[in-house]
Amino acid sequence: MSTTVSPLAPKKYPKMPAIPGVRMATAEAGIKYRNRTDLLAMVFDEGTEVAGVFTRSKCPSAPVDFCRANLPGGRARLLVVNSGNANAFTGKKGRETTAITGKAGAAAAGCQPGEVFLASTGVIGEPLDAGRFAHLLAGMVKDATADFWREAASAIMTTDTYPKVATVTVKLGDADVTINGIAKGAGMIAPEMATMLSFVATDAPIAARVLQALLSGAVGKTFNAITVDSDTSTSDTLLIFATGAAEKRGAPRIETRKDPRLAAFKRGLGKVLKSLALQVVRDGEGARKQVEVAVTGAKSARSARRIAMSIANSPLVKTAVAGEDANWGRVVMAVGKSGEPADRDRLSIWFGDNRLAFEGERDPGYSEEATSAYMRRQDIRIRADIGIGRGKATVWTCDLTKEYVAINGDYRS
Amino acid sequence: MSTTVSPLAPKKYPKMPAIPGVRMATAEAGIKYRNRTDLLAMVFDEGTEVAGVFTRSKCPSAPVDFCRANLPGGRARLLVVNSGNANAFTGKKGRETTAITGKAGAAAAGCQPGEVFLASTGVIGEPLDAGRFAHLLAGMVKDATADFWREAASAIMTTDTYPKVATVTVKLGDADVTINGIAKGAGMIAPEMATMLSFVATDAPIAARVLQALLSGAVGKTFNAITVDSDTSTSDTLLIFATGAAEKRGAPRIETRKDPRLAAFKRGLGKVLKSLALQVVRDGEGARKQVEVAVTGAKSARSARRIAMSIANSPLVKTAVAGEDANWGRVVMAVGKSGEPADRDRLSIWFGDNRLAFEGERDPGYSEEATSAYMRRQDIRIRADIGIGRGKATVWTCDLTKEYVAINGDYRS
Repeated sequence: MSTTVSPLAPKKYPKMPAIPGVRMATAEAGIKYRNRTDLLAMVFDEGTEVAGVFTRSKCPSAPVDFCRANLPGGRARLLVVNSGNANAFTGKKGRETTAITGKAGAAAAGCQPGEVFLASTGVIGEPLDAGRFAHLLAGMVKDATADFWREAASAIMTTDTYPKVATVTVKLGDADVTINGIAKGAGMIAPEMATMLSFVATDAPIAARVLQALLSGAVGKTFNAITVDSDTSTSDTLLIFATGAAEKRGAPRIETRKDPRLAAFKRGLGKVLKSLALQVVRDGEGARKQVEVAVTGAKSARSARRIAMSIANSPLVKTAVAGEDANWGRVVMAVGKSGEPADRDRLSIWFGDNRLAFEGERDPGYSEEATSAYMRRQDIRIRADIGIGRGKATVWTCDLTKEYVAINGDYRS
Repeated sequence: MSTTVSPLAPKKYPKMPAIPGVRMATAEAGIKYRNRTDLLAMVFDEGTEVAGVFTRSKCPSAPVDFCRANLPGGRARLLVVNSGNANAFTGKKGRETTAITGKAGAAAAGCQPGEVFLASTGVIGEPLDAGRFAHLLAGMVKDATADFWREAASAIMTTDTYPKVATVTVKLGDADVTINGIAKGAGMIAPEMATMLSFVATDAPIAARVLQALLSGAVGKTFNAITVDSDTSTSDTLLIFATGAAEKRGAPRIETRKDPRLAAFKRGLGKVLKSLALQVVRDGEGARKQVEVAVTGAKSARSARRIAMSIANSPLVKTAVAGEDANWGRVVMAVGKSGEPADRDRLSIWFGDNRLAFEGERDPGYSEEATSAYMRRQDIRIRADIGIGRGKATVWTCDLTKEYVAINGDYRS
């Protein structure tokens, strides 16, 4: 864990309201780290519905397998998360660990193992000994409290330099419902999945299959639109829990995704996920700048997304941003290497409001001075207009600094 | 240009024999660099045949367009290469520059502009002024000499820290023929193309269409099997020139790719290309280690190649190698993120001869000490056996160090 906090850390944290039906506890299980919490239990009242999305890795962790197996049940009473060890590529031992933890958790929460959800983050390939923490769960469930979101977010950190939380309150029918979320990120962050670990809870009474549709719909423009290093984790897990507690206060129970009363909730969920996703980018390993990459004028939205990711994952673009160098030639390179339809002579590129390239060559009005001043900012926007269609996409990344190499050159040893 | 030579530089250079029919000259045109050569003219005797492969970038440089247009003619009399400016994304001005250079070159060599080939390497997006060097060509053609390969390789360097040359002599029929090659690399090096610039010449009498078949066949396991940073250049150009001078010494003229007398030449060409490709990897920006990634047991050769590239391009794998950390969990991650068919529980991983993971979990015989000792070597071999088929592929890369970030954070400014 880094001792220096990212310069992009939030200046202040939102006050996280309690979610009726959700209680939390953390513990120092000493799994890998010393003198910090590394275990989180999140306890849900009876009737809580759950939905989730997971890594698309072909080598998923044992907890991902465990959650995938439980998800069709749609019900959750307990979430157990540990940091320091991912329980990934741990074979039969890994499955034993999730089984033991599931059983101990079920006994602690008075539920079925099928209502327990697990996530682990940290080193890959080291066996995770459930004996380190399974005995702690009963006490944690007993002591769990509602006003504990910051502490929960801290317990799941690995190389993160700050805890990541987000909250919104929206109308569902005439009742206020709240959506709280936490996340951890830092490295091994790449698209096409629900990056690393994020847990969202709401008191809205929404059926599991509707939650699932909302979640799957929201990740494309949030967690799946960020990348730190193009490396997709074996453990990525995003879960949402809906306790339904707001039903007592008059919130309507939602049973279909087409329900028009969902509009505000859907926007609110998108906001929470986007806030968490950007916090993950802003705490990317070694990050000193956030980079927004917007592609317009591509052949299709899918093509625009691929071009945007080609730019956002290019080591040469990312090191140029780190060096505060408006090296738009590398953006041309990244458009070209994406393999997507493009026409060199129609391509235009902006850094912020500075148009550097226009219709296939350097913009005649290009000002090195203005652009250099822009590059010294903390938030950089790169836009590429491909000029051949109407497809567009926006993704977010961070710069690639020497600190990324330093952090990852000695993370495990 | 770096002042520190890569620790992976060749301990000694081969003596490069003259190729009858090829002469070279270099000059200090002051295009970007000072106090070094940045212009190369390679002059070929009448009757020289040519073949080439180029970047698959959708935004290729003006010289790539120029070469592609001339290649169907199959004849070459002059190659002009400059470093310091890539003449890429330079629009109409870029095409004017190649036209002027082509004409000046043709006048100097007494040939048609269609027999002139051009390559440029350096910064993207800056107009390249042909006035800087077109007037030098006549003198260079006049002064060109045969024993000048090292000097030629030096003139085309950008962030390279050493010149790259290779040579073999093989039998064609009963005659000896020689194949010489030079290359430049360093950054923006990625697969699916003929990386950066490489020029090969031979005195073998081989028809252009046969040369083309040989070259296209050889790049898959040489230049297209290396990656420094996954970033595909706009300028990648690999050209081979066959002067045919050995015909006078009894070498048979080869008109068909099926000619059995080609076997030794084909092997020799593969050797030269592989030597140059590995020299490019070993001079990757900031490189301190060479990494060979071998994938076996994949569903197909194509699938094996994709998995190998996923490993070789992973920033987390490459930083682990830089940190001398046998972090095989990141190899699992890279196999998983490739999206190719894999079964976590059949996967095995080796670093050198040390098997670290076997059938889905850490190898019981794993020795941290032996593996750590292995990781301190300069040449690292990673092998992943997917365990589901017979597809295999080998690719090469280098580690990702802080120096890569430093070099690319201030290359342009």
